[in-house]
Amino acid sequence: MAASSSLTVSQALVGRKISGINTSSRSQSLPGFSLSTLSGRTLKSSLISSIASSRSNRVNTPSLSRSLVVRAAAVETLEKTDTALVDKSVNTIRFLAIDAVEKANSGHPGLPMGCAPMGHILYDETMRYNPKNPYWFNRDRFVLSAGHGCMLQYALLHLAGYDSVTTEDLKTFRQWGSKIPGHPENFETPGVEVTTGPLGQGIANAVGLALAEKHLAARFNKPDSEIVDHYTYCILGDGCQMEGIANEACSLAGHWGLGKLIAFYDDNHISIDGDTEIAFTESVDTRFEGLGWHVIWVKNGNNGYDEIRAAIKEAKAVTDKPTLIKVTTTIGFGSPNKANSYAVHGAALGSKEVDATRKNLDWPFEPFHVPEDVKSHWSRHTAEGAALEAEWTAKFAEYEKKYSEDAAEFKSIMTGEFPAGWEKALPTYTPEIPADATRNLSQTCLNALAPVLPGLIGGSADLASSNMTLMKMFGDFQKATPEERNVRFGVREHAMGAICNGIALHSPGFVPYCATFFVFTDYMRGAMRISALSEAGVIYVMTHDSIGLGEDGPTHQPIEHLASFRAMPNILMLRPADGNETAGSYKVAVENRKRPSILALSRQKLANLPGTSIEGVAKGGYTISDNSTGNKPDVILCATGSELEIAEKAAGELRKEGKTVRVVSFVSWELYDEQTDEYKESVLPAAVTARVSIEAGSTFGWHKIIGSKGKAIGVDGFGASAPAPIIYKEFGITSEAVIAAAKSVM
Amino acid sequence: MAASSSLTVSQALVGRKISGINTSSRSQSLPGFSLSTLSGRTLKSSLISSIASSRSNRVNTPSLSRSLVVRAAAVETLEKTDTALVDKSVNTIRFLAIDAVEKANSGHPGLPMGCAPMGHILYDETMRYNPKNPYWFNRDRFVLSAGHGCMLQYALLHLAGYDSVTTEDLKTFRQWGSKIPGHPENFETPGVEVTTGPLGQGIANAVGLALAEKHLAARFNKPDSEIVDHYTYCILGDGCQMEGIANEACSLAGHWGLGKLIAFYDDNHISIDGDTEIAFTESVDTRFEGLGWHVIWVKNGNNGYDEIRAAIKEAKAVTDKPTLIKVTTTIGFGSPNKANSYAVHGAALGSKEVDATRKNLDWPFEPFHVPEDVKSHWSRHTAEGAALEAEWTAKFAEYEKKYSEDAAEFKSIMTGEFPAGWEKALPTYTPEIPADATRNLSQTCLNALAPVLPGLIGGSADLASSNMTLMKMFGDFQKATPEERNVRFGVREHAMGAICNGIALHSPGFVPYCATFFVFTDYMRGAMRISALSEAGVIYVMTHDSIGLGEDGPTHQPIEHLASFRAMPNILMLRPADGNETAGSYKVAVENRKRPSILALSRQKLANLPGTSIEGVAKGGYTISDNSTGNKPDVILCATGSELEIAEKAAGELRKEGKTVRVVSFVSWELYDEQTDEYKESVLPAAVTARVSIEAGSTFGWHKIIGSKGKAIGVDGFGASAPAPIIYKEFGITSEAVIAAAKSVM
Repeated sequence: MAASSSLTVSQALVGRKISGINTSSRSQSLPGFSLSTLSGRTLKSSLISSIASSRSNRVNTPSLSRSLVVRAAAVETLEKTDTALVDKSVNTIRFLAIDAVEKANSGHPGLPMGCAPMGHILYDETMRYNPKNPYWFNRDRFVLSAGHGCMLQYALLHLAGYDSVTTEDLKTFRQWGSKIPGHPENFETPGVEVTTGPLGQGIANAVGLALAEKHLAARFNKPDSEIVDHYTYCILGDGCQMEGIANEACSLAGHWGLGKLIAFYDDNHISIDGDTEIAFTESVDTRFEGLGWHVIWVKNGNNGYDEIRAAIKEAKAVTDKPTLIKVTTTIGFGSPNKANSYAVHGAALGSKEVDATRKNLDWPFEPFHVPEDVKSHWSRHTAEGAALEAEWTAKFAEYEKKYSEDAAEFKSIMTGEFPAGWEKALPTYTPEIPADATRNLSQTCLNALAPVLPGLIGGSADLASSNMTLMKMFGDFQKATPEERNVRFGVREHAMGAICNGIALHSPGFVPYCATFFVFTDYMRGAMRISALSEAGVIYVMTHDSIGLGEDGPTHQPIEHLASFRAMPNILMLRPADGNETAGSYKVAVENRKRPSILALSRQKLANLPGTSIEGVAKGGYTISDNSTGNKPDVILCATGSELEIAEKAAGELRKEGKTVRVVSFVSWELYDEQTDEYKESVLPAAVTARVSIEAGSTFGWHKIIGSKGKAIGVDGFGASAPAPIIYKEFGITSEAVIAAAKSVM
Repeated sequence: MAASSSLTVSQALVGRKISGINTSSRSQSLPGFSLSTLSGRTLKSSLISSIASSRSNRVNTPSLSRSLVVRAAAVETLEKTDTALVDKSVNTIRFLAIDAVEKANSGHPGLPMGCAPMGHILYDETMRYNPKNPYWFNRDRFVLSAGHGCMLQYALLHLAGYDSVTTEDLKTFRQWGSKIPGHPENFETPGVEVTTGPLGQGIANAVGLALAEKHLAARFNKPDSEIVDHYTYCILGDGCQMEGIANEACSLAGHWGLGKLIAFYDDNHISIDGDTEIAFTESVDTRFEGLGWHVIWVKNGNNGYDEIRAAIKEAKAVTDKPTLIKVTTTIGFGSPNKANSYAVHGAALGSKEVDATRKNLDWPFEPFHVPEDVKSHWSRHTAEGAALEAEWTAKFAEYEKKYSEDAAEFKSIMTGEFPAGWEKALPTYTPEIPADATRNLSQTCLNALAPVLPGLIGGSADLASSNMTLMKMFGDFQKATPEERNVRFGVREHAMGAICNGIALHSPGFVPYCATFFVFTDYMRGAMRISALSEAGVIYVMTHDSIGLGEDGPTHQPIEHLASFRAMPNILMLRPADGNETAGSYKVAVENRKRPSILALSRQKLANLPGTSIEGVAKGGYTISDNSTGNKPDVILCATGSELEIAEKAAGELRKEGKTVRVVSFVSWELYDEQTDEYKESVLPAAVTARVSIEAGSTFGWHKIIGSKGKAIGVDGFGASAPAPIIYKEFGITSEAVIAAAKSVM
């Protein structure tokens, strides 16, 4: 079994090389059509269909030799299966989904019923994976961007032999403690690559996964050893297509020429509110052509297996562009009374309709039953997967011998083990060092870390020169230079975050970072929350972090953003005050591989303060100066970031007046929360209720720190357009205000 | 002057009717091009160019009669100006921008320098407005989606005679207290329609403005009286084009066939990080054709005045599609050393380069100087604008006589004065009325308000049947039925919010609402913040507001969202607990026309509680039950929404044990904050520190209410996929937990 499978794999590799056809010359040989001058879905569809069929005609030979063609496609993947068995396998997938949703009395049967054919062909005939090691590095990645249809993926993982989805698991769908929750969650179900459900995220994750593959392949593959070589497959629906994030991500995928990204668009014409005609009449095909994708239309996604196979073959032959395979399906295929309607999208069919569907599809089996021949057919994936991994492992062992330096870097990315002592590369600062903006200090850290962290890769949403995010020793990741590590995301914040999630979840040693102005986290919050939920350790480099950015005014000045992220679970909100705290924030961010970090950084220059430290940042809140004894200061001044300097100045004045004053930096509330009660008492003794906070942002949440008797100085309205020092003064973010507040609470 | 101007207007109206050419038959007469099969910017561009020129050839006559053609275009708008004077006016605009940015030493001169020609033609030759009444109902709307280029708009408003931008104002650009801030803000500068700067928002606002016009025109115009008839113009740049929100909004604009939306795409090939080649190589033209837009390319936007005029004429002739006029410009046109580079995008030119630009453009004048002939030329807009408004006012007076009922509705939308007693339509509830989900109660309110609020219009992002947002007496706003009031946004949350901002800011009596699951506010936060900042009274109907939604799991369960909006300035976060509080929330939301509201609504059924009231909601926090005397309860239980019922149950148990317990509903923290200290003391007496809060969301922020000694019960991690009652129990959101916490603090 192992031998025959490795033969098949070699064939597959050969097949891929042979089929490298120049697509642009092909498309230029298609004159006479003017897609742009015709309008309407039907006209365009028929045109594209004729193009698609003429394309396959040219690649293959027509009509009679069709079965031969398909055999060729099957050889390129794994092996040919007879159609009756495919039908049976496809119906198994459909009914596993139907039965699980029915038992849960909750879920989305429609998509799995419609997409089961493409799902079968992907997991049974196309993808390379090892079900007993879902984390094998060189596996093909699959993303269900239409995450509500997760029973499709769970059924496929079950058939493929993943231990994460047993028959018993299928019966627990959407129940407390289940391994198969209501939407795909990578942290719950091995075999699920990313967390989807919020629409559009998945396709953007897929772009990140494909970027990661293209980058690693270009950086590490050698002419005699291709250790990185896998595809990224994605299924997205009409809902994903409507989301702006999907357009952003797909524009980048086209720009980057991610030829190994193959996305299936489940074109079923139904969304929750009914026929897509009511809100979605654009030509997706034309749009994707504009985005630089290769577009194929499979007209019969319900049982046109050969069409699907041919489309995958064609997609693989196009190596310089991502491919969108539009697969027209019937949502809820097989349900006599609910197919092709929104009724089958998001609710159990109901026992009567389940029975009718069983009858309609000639499915005599009990719920959750997998027929023996189907089971037997799929069972080969366990051995084949093991063989695939073994073959790759052997190949990598060879690689390691020949290319030990590259192999070490590659292994760091593959395993997540960073080179020992990497953190020593971080700079430290003393108060004598001139003031600087933390955005600049951040760039110093990034450039210090880039040589010691092989997986550090990232960039900005068209603000590299403002966010200060370029790694100066590297060039740009581009279509022709994918081995480089500076990524240019364009003005696409939401896709940027989701692409970084994809990179982070591709391999544990990737440390992706991305950047924009802090206020524009509003544009990418959907992706940032998924970072937090899916344990993707993305570093968000967010500059221009307050009214301190000045003249750009209130549209650009964050106010509520610190509070809004402090309230978000499993994300670290860090606001460093100077050089040491910026370095400390990076140390924390890099170390937290299962928790994303946000660094809020200043546009304006900030003094290096005495008392700040990398170690202090790790505590989240720590004393930077204190002239009290016995843990009983007259007043405690709390601040973060650019206002720590103001607090320190106020403390100096108050001390001159004979007061004992402690200044505490609250650089990360989450890290502080994790400290022991004893430590917390040493920083914020319960007996000292005279506390003042100052932060150039919303005071919301500060009362937890300063208590009922404390005073919070901040900005609770929107900002203003003016030079920063004037805004600070007018808004009362001053040491004078701190002094007055301190006196009022002492 | 007035007479001649009103003649011109009549001509314009006649002109528009004559030029109504069937575009689809035109485009079908262009065979032989296959845009979809060719790739690359240059190839496509030249093709589109040849299409564009063949189009103008067909509409007009070629070469020699070109000036005649232009004259025709000018007649359709206002009047022909000789080219030398146009040059001078355009350079005036350029230098007003250069000088203001230079004086501020901050700002973005590049766009105004490149877009001055289209700006001149819009404000001087095309748009109908009254500079002395920026709020005249039937004005053409202009949106600078590339808001950083705001000096373009300020210069145009200045030349056009708006009192909001005097010469003195120009000298205060970006300074404290200025009327012309760093990005366009409708609440600071009359004449600015919406607030832009965050990219992509403006074009989506423009879609909302155009939707509003199309709706009102279809609903109120009569064959003998077109009281609604204006265009929406927009300038957007490469940055806007990259943003997903722009694609969402433009897809809808195409779907709705917003023929009077004309967007100028400033195609200057430069973004902040350099040439757009590094991140943006898609074919925008092809994408917009896919989105159902008419696309025109003006190759010389720097001084091709006639090309711009012809494009506007062509755009107006296409009445069933929005038009994108791609105008290729040189960013920073005229600057000898900085034009066509990112250096001119976002910083002052510097005195040396300003001098060089003055020399290069032959501009001998002092900073901020407007030459007399330019001033004199523009001065006619004051009289012409007054005449335009007077003519319209007379027309409306006629309309009012003939169609008094329609006129009354129309006036309510135009003025923002609601029919007296509208709030009496809201339902009230008693505890005997069966439990219901607040999402359902919300639909009852919407359907009660729809008949009494002529400006109520809205819908959902493909979740109408989950959000319960349909107004049952109306049909769908669609291309062919724009008079209807249910809007189908598709799965496009971000554009939905921004479109509603556009509707709200079109006319003060519009009450736009929009809906999705509460967690997906993450997708539209950029637009929601602009609602708050720009005082757009949008109502956000956000259902599925907690872990109470159950099986869909953590991707769908909001946790931090209540806190995140409570921290946002100028937005009301309302979480009603039952029927009365839902009605009260709608009353507040409708009344607050300059402050958006978010209603967080349950999926699950909630009991109607004794003690809740519409009046109570208006206070934000109020006692719903209490068995104490002398304002000294043993404990105060605080809750919102679905947890108020749990608090009430716990109170019942505690009272049985002899405790005195007050239960307070904190339905809106913002409204509570606005109450008098006396009132607050009556609800939360300082002496009672035994306080417990319960809310199925982040506890972040609650300490301000419960104080240092209180206990907050909530959910500080992510949710889970399971039936809602089980999640509540497992997460400890129970009356037992409240009782235990109460006992621990008493």
